[in-house]
Order: sequence, then C-alpha cells, then structure tokens
Amino acid sequence: MAAELTAQQLIDQHRPTLDRALEAIRTRAYWSPHPEHPKAYGEHGSLDLAAGRAAFDALLGARLDLGQPGTDDWVGGETSPYGVELGVSYPHADLDVLLPAMRAGMRAWRDAGAETRAVVCLEILRRISDRTTEFAHTVMHTSGQAFMMAFQAGGPHAQDRGMEAVAYAYAEQTRTPDTAQWTKPQGKRDPLTLTKRFTPVPRGIGLVIGCNTFPTWNGYPGLFASLATGNAVLVKPHPRAVLPLALTVQVARQVLTEAGFDPNLVALAAERPGEGIAKTLATRPEIRIIDYTGSTEFGDWLEANARQAQVHTEKAGVNTVIVESTGDYQGMLANLAFSLSLYSGQMCTTPQNLLIPRGGITTDQGPRSFDEVVADLAKAVDGLLGDDARANALLGAIVNPDVKARLEAAAGLGEVALASREIANPEFPDAVVRTPVIVTLDGSKPDAEAAYLSECFGPVSFAVAVDSASDAAELLRRTVREKGAMTVGAYTTSPEVEETVREVCLEEAAQLSLNLTGGVYVNQTAAFSDFHGSGGNPAANATLTDAAFVANRFRVIEVRREA
Amino acid sequence: MAAELTAQQLIDQHRPTLDRALEAIRTRAYWSPHPEHPKAYGEHGSLDLAAGRAAFDALLGARLDLGQPGTDDWVGGETSPYGVELGVSYPHADLDVLLPAMRAGMRAWRDAGAETRAVVCLEILRRISDRTTEFAHTVMHTSGQAFMMAFQAGGPHAQDRGMEAVAYAYAEQTRTPDTAQWTKPQGKRDPLTLTKRFTPVPRGIGLVIGCNTFPTWNGYPGLFASLATGNAVLVKPHPRAVLPLALTVQVARQVLTEAGFDPNLVALAAERPGEGIAKTLATRPEIRIIDYTGSTEFGDWLEANARQAQVHTEKAGVNTVIVESTGDYQGMLANLAFSLSLYSGQMCTTPQNLLIPRGGITTDQGPRSFDEVVADLAKAVDGLLGDDARANALLGAIVNPDVKARLEAAAGLGEVALASREIANPEFPDAVVRTPVIVTLDGSKPDAEAAYLSECFGPVSFAVAVDSASDAAELLRRTVREKGAMTVGAYTTSPEVEETVREVCLEEAAQLSLNLTGGVYVNQTAAFSDFHGSGGNPAANATLTDAAFVANRFRVIEVRREA
Repeated sequence: MAAELTAQQLIDQHRPTLDRALEAIRTRAYWSPHPEHPKAYGEHGSLDLAAGRAAFDALLGARLDLGQPGTDDWVGGETSPYGVELGVSYPHADLDVLLPAMRAGMRAWRDAGAETRAVVCLEILRRISDRTTEFAHTVMHTSGQAFMMAFQAGGPHAQDRGMEAVAYAYAEQTRTPDTAQWTKPQGKRDPLTLTKRFTPVPRGIGLVIGCNTFPTWNGYPGLFASLATGNAVLVKPHPRAVLPLALTVQVARQVLTEAGFDPNLVALAAERPGEGIAKTLATRPEIRIIDYTGSTEFGDWLEANARQAQVHTEKAGVNTVIVESTGDYQGMLANLAFSLSLYSGQMCTTPQNLLIPRGGITTDQGPRSFDEVVADLAKAVDGLLGDDARANALLGAIVNPDVKARLEAAAGLGEVALASREIANPEFPDAVVRTPVIVTLDGSKPDAEAAYLSECFGPVSFAVAVDSASDAAELLRRTVREKGAMTVGAYTTSPEVEETVREVCLEEAAQLSLNLTGGVYVNQTAAFSDFHGSGGNPAANATLTDAAFVANRFRVIEVRREA
Repeated sequence: MAAELTAQQLIDQHRPTLDRALEAIRTRAYWSPHPEHPKAYGEHGSLDLAAGRAAFDALLGARLDLGQPGTDDWVGGETSPYGVELGVSYPHADLDVLLPAMRAGMRAWRDAGAETRAVVCLEILRRISDRTTEFAHTVMHTSGQAFMMAFQAGGPHAQDRGMEAVAYAYAEQTRTPDTAQWTKPQGKRDPLTLTKRFTPVPRGIGLVIGCNTFPTWNGYPGLFASLATGNAVLVKPHPRAVLPLALTVQVARQVLTEAGFDPNLVALAAERPGEGIAKTLATRPEIRIIDYTGSTEFGDWLEANARQAQVHTEKAGVNTVIVESTGDYQGMLANLAFSLSLYSGQMCTTPQNLLIPRGGITTDQGPRSFDEVVADLAKAVDGLLGDDARANALLGAIVNPDVKARLEAAAGLGEVALASREIANPEFPDAVVRTPVIVTLDGSKPDAEAAYLSECFGPVSFAVAVDSASDAAELLRRTVREKGAMTVGAYTTSPEVEETVREVCLEEAAQLSLNLTGGVYVNQTAAFSDFHGSGGNPAANATLTDAAFVANRFRVIEVRREA
C-alpha cells in the first residue's frame, strides 16, 4: 500500500519542531508548541470549543471500533465523576491474536529509523492537539477534573510530555552513529579496518497501564517513549478512564496507517468489569516494557513479577511542605491554598504534610504562631473556594468513592482546622464536589504517625506541629525515604534552613520547590524543563523525562565486517 | 586537608583526554589512549617490563593494607593457575563499619560535580596505566591468561573500557544543564519566571562483583561508571582473582586522598574461603547498584533478589558461528582457529557452536564437505598451536578444575574431530595447558541438543551439522533467545543468507561479526567502538558501554524557586 504520508513529508513538517524540542531538553528553558488557551483552537484544522464539545457528544453511547484484530467482544461502561454515563464501548481483545498481530509490523517500524519514527509520533501528537477541545471533555468525564484543568493538563501539557518523550527517544537513539569506519594502526603492517553498522532495535511490545486521574498526562510519556524507540505499544487504560486513551490509540492507528505502517503497532486492551487483565498482560512474554501509574501495591507487584520487562512505575508518595519562615506570607498562603485545592488534591504531587514549627514562624507580617498559620491557611483556602462557581472550576469532582471515604475519615484523625464542605455543581448535580480538609497533628505524638506517614490521596492535608526546622528536615528525610515523595516544598528565609532542606532532598532524591508564592505551584511541573518525580525514592522508579526513561527501551545492535 | 592535586590541575591534565573519549563514543571510530605494546611503557613514570615484574614479585606473600576502616581480619590465599602461590593477604571488612564509612565521603564527592569526578577517575586510570606491566602479572596469575593477553586485555583494553564508562557517565550527567531560567509568557500579565538548579545525585554504594577470568576488563566499566556518577564503590573480587582489583582499589584510594576526597569512596570486600559474602552484600540496603560478571545462576539470583539495587549482569551465553560459504577459506579457518584457541576458549565471547550445512559449503577454493570443513578447521587449530611456545603464549592456563573437567567430558558428547592435547609449560610446570577440542554433533538428532544448547565454558566447540542456511538461522535464533549470546559470527557470500542472519541478530538482539578473516576476531571488542553484549538477550542485561549502562546510576534533583 502506498503511504498517503511519506516520511519525507512528515520530516519536512515536523523536523523543526523536533529540533526545537531537542533544544528545550538541553536548555530546559520554557517551551511548548501546544497552546494552553482554548481560544487558540479552531483554526488550522483544530476544533474550537463548540466543535470539541460536539465531537465528544457524538462519542457518547457509541462503539469505538478501532479495527483491531482479535476483537472478541465489546466492553465499556464508564460513568463520569460528574454523573454522566459515557456509554462508549471498546474492543475486548483475544491476546493470542492481538499480540502476534502487534509484532507483525515491528520490523518495518524498526527499519524506518529513529527520525521517521519521531516525526510519525509528532504527527500523532499534532492530530491529538487539533482535537484538544474534544479530549478535554473525555479527560474531564473520566478523571473528574474541572473542564479547564482537563483541557490544559489533559491536552497541551500531556501532549508536551509526549513530545518530550519523543525528543529524548530520538536523542538517545542517535547518540550512536548509523555507521562507523574503524581503523586500528598496526605499526608497519596494514591497519585493521572494519565497517560497523549500528541499528537501534526495539525490545518488543510496551504496555502502558493508565491511571484514573491523568489518563493522557501520565500515559503519553511511556506510550511515545516506547513507540518512538521502535516498540509496539499496548495501552491498558484504567477501567474508569478508557475514553481518552482509546481515542489516542485511534488517532495513532490512523496516522500509522496513513504513513504506511501497520496500525497494530498501537492497540487498546480494554477489559470487562473485574477482569483485571493488567496482571495477565504484565507477565506475557511479548511484553518487554511496562509504564505504570497507580497504587504502590500494584507497582511493587509489577516490579517484583514482570521480570521479563523493563518496568517504569509511578506509585504513591507522601508529599511534604516545610513552612519555616517566609518573606511573603500572603503569597505563601495563596500559593499553598491553591496547591491544596486544585483538582481536590487528587494529584500525586499535591502536598499532604505541612510541617510547621510548634513555636510558630517568622513572616514579613511579623511572627505567626502555629495555630495562626494553620488558621490563616484555612482562611486562604476558604477565600479561594468561597465562590461556588470558582470552587467548582478549581476542585472538579471527587474521582471515586474511595477518595470520598478517605476524606470523610480524615476528620477523625486529629483536630480539624478546616472542615471539608460540599459544593453543589449546578451543571452536574450528581458530581461529588468537596473542599479540602486540613487536620492538625502533633508530630511528637507517636499515634499521629500513622496518619501523616501514610498516603491519604485526595483533598486531605495534615498540619503537623514539629519542634524545629531541623526536626522538620528529619521528618522530611524519613518520610521521603520510607514513603517516597513526588514533590517537596519549603518556605524559608533562612539560608541555613534552605541548605538543610536542600541537602535532605539531594540525599533522598526528591524534587524541591522553594518559596513559591506566585503562579507556579509545587504540584505542577512543566515538560521540557521540570522533572516529574526523581526515580530515586519509593514514589517512582523513573522520572518524566530523562535519558534513563528511554535508554533501555531499545538496544543497539552492531554488525561489523572487514572494510 | 589541603588537596595535593587540585581539581583544576586534574582538569588541565585530563580534560583533553576526556574530550577525545567523548568524541570517540560519538563517532565510534578507533581510539585508545593506552598503548598495547609493552615497549611503550618505561617512560614518563610508567613501569617497564622489568620494573613491572619486580613490583609484582614484591607483592607476593605480603599484606596489602588498604587502610580501610572496619578491617577485622586478613584473608587471602590465591593460587595462580600457573601454580604459583600468591600469598597476598587482604583486609576483611566488618560491613557495619565499612559501609557507613563509605557513605561519609559521598556528599563532597557529589558536590564536586561531574567534571571533577571524571578527571579524578582519569587520574586513577592513568596511575593504573603506568603500572600496566605490574597489573599484567596480577591478571596472568589470577586468570590464567598468557602474559601478553593479560598485559593487553587486563591492561590497556581494561583501562579503555574504564575510560569509556567515565566518558558516558560524564556525558550523561551533563545532558541537563546545572541551571536554567524558565520564563513562561502570561499574555498581558507578567511572565512566570523560575530559576532552576539541577544536581546529579548518586544512588548510594555501587557493588562490583568481579569474575575470575577478566577481573579488570569486566570490573572497570561498573567501577568507573558508578564512581564517576557520584557513588561510592565496593569491589568484591572473585576469591581466585583478588589481586588485580585490590591493587586497583589501592590506586583509587591514593588518588582520591591526594585529590582531597575520602579514600573510603572506593573499598575492597575480600572474603574468607567459602564465606560467600556476595549474597549478603548484594541485599544490603546501602548497596544501590550492582555490576556482576559470572554464572547465569547467580546473575539470575541477583536480578530476582537484589531488588533495592540497579543490577547489571553479564552472565553466560551460547555463542554461535554460522559457516555457510566464504570467499576466503584459508582466512576463515585461520580466524576461527585463533578465536577458538585464544585463552583456551575461556572468554564469554568465544564461539561454541559452529553451524555448518551437512551438504557442505562453497569457498574460493571450491566446495568443501561438512567433514572437510571440520577437518580443515581442526588442522588450522593444530597448525596454530603446533609449536609449544606459541601454544603457551596463546592458550594460557586452564583457570580452574571445573573447566578442565568440562573439557575432559566434552569428548564423550559426540564424535571428536580434534582432540585436546596437553601442552607442557616449561616456566610453570604446574600450569594446566590444553588445546581446544572440537566435537561433531548432528543438529537433527534431539539428543545432541543437550550439548549444543548448554554453555560449555572453556576450550570446547561443537561443529553442528545443520540442514541448510535457514536451518542454521533458526537454530541461531533459538539459541540466542533461550540461552543468550555475547557474540554471533557468520561466514557467507550470499546476500540473502547474510540478510537472514542479520535479521535474526536484530530481532534477538545479538552482536554480529561477518566474514572475519584477518586480525580481528569475533571474541574481541574494542572500547569506544564495539558494544560488548547487547543487553537484549539472556546473556547480559546490559552492554558495555552505552548510555543505559550509566543513566540510572544517578538521578537529577531539581531545586526551583521564583526568579
């Protein structure tokens, strides 16, 4: 079949973007090719807000036929955290048919080379970007994110993370040249000369195990890293967040087909309720790479059992913010209030433990006691979420009943400094919308440990009274070492405290945000610049994205002969 | 303590070499800074042959006091495969003292940065290089290699591999800049601006588990990769090959001290007979990286059990050469004869299975039947080893009784095409010197499989009769997939056969040498150019050396703040 899109066309179109992405990961300065503002969509073939909404509506209740081989059934049944029945059905696969079919196209994909693979991936991302307004609804109605967050985090930010992975994959595969002439002098005799040819080869089929809360943002790095390094990719979405990744697979299959490759290089593995196919898939011999985001328990299981695969996990952690002193008290409170509220704290990066000296802190507005700091933070959250429309736009919906149950139980763990409130959502009356709870704990009481040393995923934070800054640093160290952390924040005007906290973060491998008081939040990272997780503490064994994230997804095979 | 060697002095001295090494790993053209010829030593502070011999003799019977903390005993007792009692004793460590002491210097080593670490490593290599003639004897009398091979493989080639690891480590750590300014436009509002600082941080203590046959060549990549990425390194040598690595540790500790770092960043873990400390060490929580060369059984154990560490293993494989046709029959025979004879086949890269069509092959000298090919190869080996002096210089000594036993048993596995002969070594009458055995097997007989599908480490090869080239390719595929392979060779003048074999190697991730008839052998790889193993088949989970070999030995920690 003649390709509708030739490699050269794709190179002409996307090579400048690839080069710009390669520059960005070298400099780590700000860059994104994907607009964050909805108004930017609607031209050059992209869907505007209305068209995106219409496209989403057209998906509801329909069968998403991906044309996958081995489809033996249709499964689905997602219910939006906003209460909408999506009613989309997806192909259920006979793995003994699908997996061999996925391998069939790998040779041509391998032989296409790193550059062609990169630009095909960028074309997939461009098509997804054009449908950002549509994807936004799919992310909103699976994750429970508010629309604007679903739009940005599920759209441009996720696409950025995908492109970042493509850039790293390309850079990594081209570090070894395609060919080399090797000439070794032999004194007076003729030199030894060899011609060497180096080929990046894939490991096999990569498995992406998606999560409920950030299906695209957390799914794209592994998907594009594996695909760009020559592997086929099987996407196993979270059963409550299938649609965004199913659409992604559909786009990928279309682009692969148009570019003359086998669409089965990317496929979906949707499952029946309670089928739990992740364990089955993860230990299939065909699966040689796994990218997983989710619970610590299953992440640990994968690391222990999927021994035939390279396993990348992002699990749970306990994120800490140390509040020791600040030169901008109001800025700090506003920044923290936003961090605790965004998406009802349902981010792996949301702070959980706020460590505050029991003797209080110094601020630009004078000293503040422990109780004052906690009360002021509670007030800041209240103020931020005082207007229901704004609260809905910031909080989104509680993603599942487990989170709601944890939130309700949290009030019993200590003294409630800020109670969670129920917010009505006029557009989606069934949505469970809750403001965060802040619970005060005494860090010197052994019985408080069980609370603050466990991850309590959702809109729950603990204001933990500690004896001193150094006590806080030691508790931070212990928390990161034992529980892991995706993020650490600290507020301090003391160079000594800053250095102490920084040293803990360097030793325990945690990413640190210092004194954020403006429009950047500890729970947000920017592709091409920030690392998401470190890969060096128990919260995750990989970071998004560095060379280590891609370097072992392929191997370089050398064929040498005498020249 | 003031450093005798400042970082700037070391940078001035070694930066050009580092830059040259960085260029070499990019181009993979020939390069080595370490001379292969003994005559090159004796100037500029390096030991000439006589001085190297004298230095080695002075080590015998002595206690090698490394000044390590926690030394609770002295252990040793290596006997050379040439029959010499080395009588060197080494510190035995109380791990609960030594491991914390090793961690103590890591902060300063981390803070020194990638460039300083690289040049300190290059200084260690330079000091080792200066003592190449001394190290040659230590490698000879632990591995059983002949002197010239011990000199080259244990000296310059090992040093090259160490430097290659340093270059990759430096390149990898500097892919992310030290700092970045991040400025994100916000429309009409002020941009968001952050200052970001990135620091490569080590994982912890790296453990190098050395092997008997190539203590330095296989030990240096992991040692230098871990050290250059900021980790401390504990070297656990094979009990029969302690001296080369103990001397290496001694040199490293001297250089670290002179450069103002803690010498305990590199330490030795020698063991009592039968103590088996590798398992204990490998699962200590302080050990976060492991580099291992040895048996498949223990490598698999490490991968399954040392879960707290990044584990790099080089295990056993079954190496195949397909002999289908050749345009240089004599060259092929000479090349293969050398490959089978070098160091009595005691290389992880030595061919084991020679797959030859039962209908014979075509050559530049006309067709040759299967039996003729095998007989001609046997004659070539006989010719190569016909002179005892030359045989001794090529074969070295059998490294241990297990290899001797396997060699003796091999004759019973099929029809002996070339019997092993005993060679007398006039200088070392106790040395066990044996020529290789070639055993003919019929690949269509199921009972032959047990022989050719098991690794028979040592001077044993099987000439396996196969039905056709495609039969050979399929057996190659099966062998690599099931047993792994460090090397594959093929002789063919047919583009189709070449393509078939190449495709098998790409799909099964095996390194291929084609039609070698001159002075390069399938069992030899050159640092900076050839990959040793692929990391993609069961013989090894890593290759020497690529970015994946170093990228996960450190993590990058980001500290960001508002600008």
